[in-house]
Amino acid sequence: MTEIAVDFGEDGLVPAVAQDAETGEVLMLAYVSPEALEQTRETGLAHYYSRSRDELWQKGGTSGHVQHVDEVRVDCDADTLLYLVDQEGGACHTGHRSCFYRTVEGENVGEQVFDPEAVYE
Amino acid sequence: MTEIAVDFGEDGLVPAVAQDAETGEVLMLAYVSPEALEQTRETGLAHYYSRSRDELWQKGGTSGHVQHVDEVRVDCDADTLLYLVDQEGGACHTGHRSCFYRTVEGENVGEQVFDPEAVYE
Repeated sequence: MTEIAVDFGEDGLVPAVAQDAETGEVLMLAYVSPEALEQTRETGLAHYYSRSRDELWQKGGTSGHVQHVDEVRVDCDADTLLYLVDQEGGACHTGHRSCFYRTVEGENVGEQVFDPEAVYE
Repeated sequence: MTEIAVDFGEDGLVPAVAQDAETGEVLMLAYVSPEALEQTRETGLAHYYSRSRDELWQKGGTSGHVQHVDEVRVDCDADTLLYLVDQEGGACHTGHRSCFYRTVEGENVGEQVFDPEAVYE
């Protein structure tokens, strides 16, 4: 078994999809730097890299809604990751379980699991 | 219900995750241009934009392994899409059902569903 060399490309980041390991729900997509991947694997907690804030962050560091990472998968081109996670609370800063709580037509199909004003006050 | 304005950003592309609508399996990630999204919604078949070939493509156009799109979801920032699809055959050019058939440690956890040499000869 040979460790897969992730292709971080020109900008040094790959997209990572976080999926609920139990239910299969796709929770969010964020970007991962080599350091974020290393931290994720070392701690078992999902880490990402914020392109807007230009920094490494641990998911749930502020809200407590951490993601326990069961497994990290890599796609065929090794330029996208899949985190299989146990999500505490909700993944989305809007209070929804998943960030994908709307159809492109604008229908709300998601589940609100916490009050963002109470969490991020 | 108001249609969501997708934020295609500077490069005019957003990542789109394709998920099996039935089983919840995450199949692949590819990029989508405004035209690819339009074609997807018009035809009900998943279209993407190839960054390497710099062109719009219909998934399965060569292999026949098309994706029938049940629903298009948008994330909270409207800069990532989720296609819920019925996948014919396999999503991956390697013959696997999903492109995420390996762990980062290199373990093969995926299912081979077709012989790529027979399909792409």
